[in-house]
Amino acid sequence: MDYRIEKDTMGEIKVPADKIWGAQTQRSKENFRIGTEQMPIELIQAMAILKKSAAIANNKLGKLSDVKTTAIVQAADEILNGQWDDQFPLVVWQTGSGTQSNMNVNEVIAHRANQILTDAGEADRVHPNDDVNKSQSSNDTFPTALHIAAVLKVEDYLIPRLRQLKSTLDEKAENFKDIIKIGRTHLQDATPLTLGQEISGWSAMLAKSEQMIKLNIEFMKELAIGGTAVGTGINAHPEFGDRVAAEISEFTGKNFTSAANKFHALTSHDEAVVAHGALKALAADLMKIANDVRWLASGPRSGIGEITIPENEPGSSIMPGKVNPTQSEAMTMVVTQVVGNDATIAFAASQGNFELNVFKPVIIYNFLQSTRLLADTMKSFNDHCAVGIEPNKEVLDHNLQNSLMLVTALNPYIGYENAAKIAKQAHKDGTTLKEAAIASGLLTEEQFDEYVDPATMIYPNAK
Amino acid sequence: MDYRIEKDTMGEIKVPADKIWGAQTQRSKENFRIGTEQMPIELIQAMAILKKSAAIANNKLGKLSDVKTTAIVQAADEILNGQWDDQFPLVVWQTGSGTQSNMNVNEVIAHRANQILTDAGEADRVHPNDDVNKSQSSNDTFPTALHIAAVLKVEDYLIPRLRQLKSTLDEKAENFKDIIKIGRTHLQDATPLTLGQEISGWSAMLAKSEQMIKLNIEFMKELAIGGTAVGTGINAHPEFGDRVAAEISEFTGKNFTSAANKFHALTSHDEAVVAHGALKALAADLMKIANDVRWLASGPRSGIGEITIPENEPGSSIMPGKVNPTQSEAMTMVVTQVVGNDATIAFAASQGNFELNVFKPVIIYNFLQSTRLLADTMKSFNDHCAVGIEPNKEVLDHNLQNSLMLVTALNPYIGYENAAKIAKQAHKDGTTLKEAAIASGLLTEEQFDEYVDPATMIYPNAK
Amino acid sequence: MDYRIEKDTMGEIKVPADKIWGAQTQRSKENFRIGTEQMPIELIQAMAILKKSAAIANNKLGKLSDVKTTAIVQAADEILNGQWDDQFPLVVWQTGSGTQSNMNVNEVIAHRANQILTDAGEADRVHPNDDVNKSQSSNDTFPTALHIAAVLKVEDYLIPRLRQLKSTLDEKAENFKDIIKIGRTHLQDATPLTLGQEISGWSAMLAKSEQMIKLNIEFMKELAIGGTAVGTGINAHPEFGDRVAAEISEFTGKNFTSAANKFHALTSHDEAVVAHGALKALAADLMKIANDVRWLASGPRSGIGEITIPENEPGSSIMPGKVNPTQSEAMTMVVTQVVGNDATIAFAASQGNFELNVFKPVIIYNFLQSTRLLADTMKSFNDHCAVGIEPNKEVLDHNLQNSLMLVTALNPYIGYENAAKIAKQAHKDGTTLKEAAIASGLLTEEQFDEYVDPATMIYPNAK
Amino acid sequence: MDYRIEKDTMGEIKVPADKIWGAQTQRSKENFRIGTEQMPIELIQAMAILKKSAAIANNKLGKLSDVKTTAIVQAADEILNGQWDDQFPLVVWQTGSGTQSNMNVNEVIAHRANQILTDAGEADRVHPNDDVNKSQSSNDTFPTALHIAAVLKVEDYLIPRLRQLKSTLDEKAENFKDIIKIGRTHLQDATPLTLGQEISGWSAMLAKSEQMIKLNIEFMKELAIGGTAVGTGINAHPEFGDRVAAEISEFTGKNFTSAANKFHALTSHDEAVVAHGALKALAADLMKIANDVRWLASGPRSGIGEITIPENEPGSSIMPGKVNPTQSEAMTMVVTQVVGNDATIAFAASQGNFELNVFKPVIIYNFLQSTRLLADTMKSFNDHCAVGIEPNKEVLDHNLQNSLMLVTALNPYIGYENAAKIAKQAHKDGTTLKEAAIASGLLTEEQFDEYVDPATMIYPNAK
Repeated sequence: MDYRIEKDTMGEIKVPADKIWGAQTQRSKENFRIGTEQMPIELIQAMAILKKSAAIANNKLGKLSDVKTTAIVQAADEILNGQWDDQFPLVVWQTGSGTQSNMNVNEVIAHRANQILTDAGEADRVHPNDDVNKSQSSNDTFPTALHIAAVLKVEDYLIPRLRQLKSTLDEKAENFKDIIKIGRTHLQDATPLTLGQEISGWSAMLAKSEQMIKLNIEFMKELAIGGTAVGTGINAHPEFGDRVAAEISEFTGKNFTSAANKFHALTSHDEAVVAHGALKALAADLMKIANDVRWLASGPRSGIGEITIPENEPGSSIMPGKVNPTQSEAMTMVVTQVVGNDATIAFAASQGNFELNVFKPVIIYNFLQSTRLLADTMKSFNDHCAVGIEPNKEVLDHNLQNSLMLVTALNPYIGYENAAKIAKQAHKDGTTLKEAAIASGLLTEEQFDEYVDPATMIYPNAK
Repeated sequence: MDYRIEKDTMGEIKVPADKIWGAQTQRSKENFRIGTEQMPIELIQAMAILKKSAAIANNKLGKLSDVKTTAIVQAADEILNGQWDDQFPLVVWQTGSGTQSNMNVNEVIAHRANQILTDAGEADRVHPNDDVNKSQSSNDTFPTALHIAAVLKVEDYLIPRLRQLKSTLDEKAENFKDIIKIGRTHLQDATPLTLGQEISGWSAMLAKSEQMIKLNIEFMKELAIGGTAVGTGINAHPEFGDRVAAEISEFTGKNFTSAANKFHALTSHDEAVVAHGALKALAADLMKIANDVRWLASGPRSGIGEITIPENEPGSSIMPGKVNPTQSEAMTMVVTQVVGNDATIAFAASQGNFELNVFKPVIIYNFLQSTRLLADTMKSFNDHCAVGIEPNKEVLDHNLQNSLMLVTALNPYIGYENAAKIAKQAHKDGTTLKEAAIASGLLTEEQFDEYVDPATMIYPNAK
Repeated sequence: MDYRIEKDTMGEIKVPADKIWGAQTQRSKENFRIGTEQMPIELIQAMAILKKSAAIANNKLGKLSDVKTTAIVQAADEILNGQWDDQFPLVVWQTGSGTQSNMNVNEVIAHRANQILTDAGEADRVHPNDDVNKSQSSNDTFPTALHIAAVLKVEDYLIPRLRQLKSTLDEKAENFKDIIKIGRTHLQDATPLTLGQEISGWSAMLAKSEQMIKLNIEFMKELAIGGTAVGTGINAHPEFGDRVAAEISEFTGKNFTSAANKFHALTSHDEAVVAHGALKALAADLMKIANDVRWLASGPRSGIGEITIPENEPGSSIMPGKVNPTQSEAMTMVVTQVVGNDATIAFAASQGNFELNVFKPVIIYNFLQSTRLLADTMKSFNDHCAVGIEPNKEVLDHNLQNSLMLVTALNPYIGYENAAKIAKQAHKDGTTLKEAAIASGLLTEEQFDEYVDPATMIYPNAK
Repeated sequence: MDYRIEKDTMGEIKVPADKIWGAQTQRSKENFRIGTEQMPIELIQAMAILKKSAAIANNKLGKLSDVKTTAIVQAADEILNGQWDDQFPLVVWQTGSGTQSNMNVNEVIAHRANQILTDAGEADRVHPNDDVNKSQSSNDTFPTALHIAAVLKVEDYLIPRLRQLKSTLDEKAENFKDIIKIGRTHLQDATPLTLGQEISGWSAMLAKSEQMIKLNIEFMKELAIGGTAVGTGINAHPEFGDRVAAEISEFTGKNFTSAANKFHALTSHDEAVVAHGALKALAADLMKIANDVRWLASGPRSGIGEITIPENEPGSSIMPGKVNPTQSEAMTMVVTQVVGNDATIAFAASQGNFELNVFKPVIIYNFLQSTRLLADTMKSFNDHCAVGIEPNKEVLDHNLQNSLMLVTALNPYIGYENAAKIAKQAHKDGTTLKEAAIASGLLTEEQFDEYVDPATMIYPNAK
């Protein structure tokens, strides 16, 4: 293998010749052979956005030359274009401040900037710490990148996929708004509603989740940048934090700001906890939706069978012709993952000491995994399941006609206790509700037909 | 034991003569001998608020007579006054819709209302289902009471205690704003900050938590009432939900509304998940604060020892004279409880099926426990610890003067790498930073004294 | 209120005259007004067992007089008899070593022992620290009591209730061993099995859980006693730990031993984590069992409806005649609680520092709550649900005959792909499998009847 | 792109020409574009072990020809040799039975076996379902592979790394067995112990964890194989399960058996829950160890500073010369991940229905991630931190001499209360304990020197 020698304040170290990272990246690579989970590329890209913005801000503040700034910005843009994805080999399980990934980005940008400067015939040299990391510390850059990555992934990746699924459900709710069916509470037959109403509940879950996620992700738009080493802003210009936040906002089109209290920004991840809590609430809702779908589609002969869903793959390696609700299964597995990730994030967020919380990489790893999985599973569920949901009208109608809980409509006329007697008698005898009602002598056939009409039981009644 | 006979649709059952609950309460008591956790009184009281409001709304809609309404309202008020606390014996581990506690309240109110009517010489009789529960179902009353109880406990009980602690910390931050001390990141010495700045980070945590909790508790102000059995509003007047929400708002002084989608309101507890997520974020912050306090107060001779805290009790049954940071310990134990409760709530919230989630009692039990414990531990920590925090100036100053990380101030003058050499040399030789700096030949004593001044290292610098 | 003055090393304090606790208990009561969760009585009783055993051991080692020993033992026995239950008012949220509850027990025993001595005309006085706590520290007594309480509750309270439910299920499995029914995987129809086999899976879950719980609770039979303040055993006789463990074993009939490494015993709660992990595995199984039961009993007209379960209470406050699977609901809520408790315990167990973990009270509180709730809900589910499970033979048979997955029996004869074609055709056309099979021309009616016999599809086949 | 056409019971589909997987793999790839987490290679390899063993068992039972068996075994061996790692592209988030990964392995083996047969001039063709999957279902093969993968990873990968770290700690404990130091409880100074004793506590944690993990992983040696579709064993020979387990045992050198109750084996993952609970207990212990190490090494000037650890990388991008306890940080982040994974596994394990639990992929994904991360972080911590732990004798001795808690040795002579007075006085006056003791008049200098000797305070005492 071909190597070159790189050095840092600890001394010299060999780096593979085809890599442009530096000594500290190499040290981390060798010292942390733990697992296979690489620092998420979204975090690296957020760091590139930050480095670019910091260079511009430093330049405007007269702290970084035009030549160096241009080179740093170009290098950062190349990272954002995906040109250097293979230059960020570090794993999540490194130093808890993310210093090593900060340095990885600093080193790659510096190396690449120096190539650019050399190609341009410039004599200046960009230093990973003194230039790329100027006015910064890992302690403020990493949480800044953490927030940027989380915001972009949630707003630009998850929300559109959530909306797509919601839109599909809304369409189904509209299409099925006249299909009256039996309701179920406690898994037991209850009063009727329309299939459209039932699905509107799922849609309302997504709407509420969207609202809650968007509100809570706002908290992550406050950035640590400007706090540097311990939150005081040592070695940074007083305007640096605000200016970098403004550059990032312009580049991303989001309204990022510099955090009001930088001591909080370095030590607390309450914003990540609460924003992920909103993702967990979405997960809880998706569990319910996915379960409803697979139960309603259960069968084909001995289940609930009130809807059909697309058949996408052979379901069994042994049972020929079997088709399973696999999109629900993938989705519900994602839910269990998100619930676990939430536990990890809160635990990690609670373990700060003094001026720093050193559990940052594990927080963003889990946050991004949850976001990506929720987004992907919603899209997959939408495309391969929800769009194909169709009512099984025969079953729906049969269940409705059979229901004993239509008796509830009699409460206002004969009281709860008399109504209960009728329902119990019908259940015991295996008769229809109507038969039992008439047999009870409490009301006539005409009255029964007037009072017990499923079509009038699916909304409130002013009478 | 003296008994009387009560009956419901299942038949007759003996109820202790000195109790005013009815048959369904008694059945639940006998069928669910599980644990010792009673349905929280806050939930019962929220239910009383609801029953009173529902009676008034029904009355205004012409569905309940003035006589019955007055009796029901009086009975509910008596519950709210705490007169009947011993009449709600049911445990959390009952039916998952909370039907049995809904009926417990219906039965107690009906029984008491009938006593009132009898005393007043009225012939009318209030029925637990047909009158007290009129236009309602457990399926909409229980989640409504769940939301009311959560909102009241959070806004009126927790928030004031959070603010009190925040106020104490703000005062400390102000008092100690000129005490410069060493910073610590990764538990290792870092650049300086003031003790006031350090404490301001704790205060900012509480401020952020307050903001996040208040925003998220808003979601719980949407009420299920009006949805009745399955969300359609069967057997309720179209205006019933809005009118009840208005009565509850007037009584509580909060802006409750009737939920836009009742199918969501009965089946999803995403609002409870996200609101408790904000409580968990507070918990994570409190873990950090309580840990910082006990570490800073560690010693008395061989710890960090930078602050002192009140001595409240003998700390050890074997080590004489020992004093321990017991308020931090209680607080951190509460944090672990809240984290567990959060897992319970999300799990429970995910398990809805069709038109109902039947994990409501366990959700509100955990929600209220978290709220109560967080509030109480903040107050206890405030009164018995935070108010007494004092700096140990001798230690603070000694640590500051000794620090090698003041070297960071040299970065802009001699670069990161040269600065590192000086710090490492001082560390190796056990000398002061100044001695090593001068010995390095990179700067003069005068320059060192000018550049390395802790008092100028605690804020950003425009230079 | 009547008071008397008590004192400890912090000074004097007023104690209610009708209470026999001392100064430190009173201080804790006043300093920790947090929540309503009292230190579990099981922990107090375990402490009493320990204090009695320690007194006997000290006496045998010549360190405590006969007179004092007798008085201490009698006082401890009175606590065990439940005579002094109201003398242990402290909450869980106190010092994390449980020192205050240790002192509460020391103080109550000393006070009561001194009453006994006075009554007997003895001049000797028992001191809470020097006598009752002799050779002990909270740091070894509390974890010792924690282990004793956990072992007794699990082995003597939970296991018998688990076995009772298992026994009921075994009986059902035996009774229903000839009832062939459709299987379901992915909620979709699958190959048949007997109802007895299905229930045998539930029973096997309980059997496996019992085995796993019993094996893991063994780890908690190692006791910290003898480690005193930091694990070194300072101020204790070298034989003290072993002798106390022997006394406790004799009294409880369990094989407790003194832990091999006392530094571990004071700082690690890995045994509690793993033992509670076994309780969580049981909880996961119970979720599955309770869900199966309520789904199989769903209906009465539009659900699976293959079994019936007892009707114990009116199920709805609005829907007359509704009956719900409430025992399943209580059980599944307990499961969510146990899952949350498990998170709390592991978090708490991870937070030890140096010679002590100060999260002991929250660990035992959650451990005992889980144990009690699991035990109680199994008993309640057994008595009010499992014993009454009956097959709904008509439905079971109808579903079986209708199933398309009987096609699996054809794999060995015509191959998976041909079999799939037949099943799909029958599904598409709504015909029986037999009709589709014969129509396929791949086999004759006689062959079909020979190959596809549910009675031969419920066990392996040597052919 | 070059494609070939594959088909299954759903029809035709294009597969990349350079891949040897089949139609069902391709379908899954297209239908589940969710996340980046591939089915762990350990699971694929476990599946290969199983397929090979199943082929041999079927062959011995006369159900599979020699020619086909040989080809299948060779293909499986090639997978085990890592030759086909790029042929298993499916993600975790697929069908919850793992059917698609089962089919992926079936398809790759069949395809490769057919290549082998073709090369050998054989006319026979191996079918993925009828031959490779013979006598099997995904429903028994996937949980079988899940157990095999877990057992191998834990016993052969994690345990050796745990032992290595334990061995290092044992060596340190032995080396430092004579270094007396101050103890700390509640973060406050306590009675002394040796550094060796302190480290022995960490070692005992690993020893206990090893014992608990090994015991609990035994439960995973029961295999589902033989249960086929729903646990009845349909389409398998009665001896098939036992024979396959025997083949697997022979190949792996472990004592796998066929599960006693196959209905349990397909629907319950209680064994995975309890085994992962033991991993979580290890995680909790590692959190404590890693925290102790970084706290003891905190400083260099203003922390505890009683030990030094290796300096592996520059610690800060802004603070020159800073060195941080990064191995502790990676380890504690892993702990938070394992705690989250535990929540995921239990949730997933609880969600089985009827004859199958369809959360199997997410369970094994998390189980293997935890195992790998714990193993790797222990090795990394060992190599880059633990081996280099050295005492800082000057600090250790200074702290010891300064301690007030040596007063505990006076309890037996002057009683707890008098001893407390002395300690408090010394604390108040800032004097040594000895000075305060003599000033108290309770004992002479000679007595003090005799009684208060740290060297006699680190073990029990028969006096």
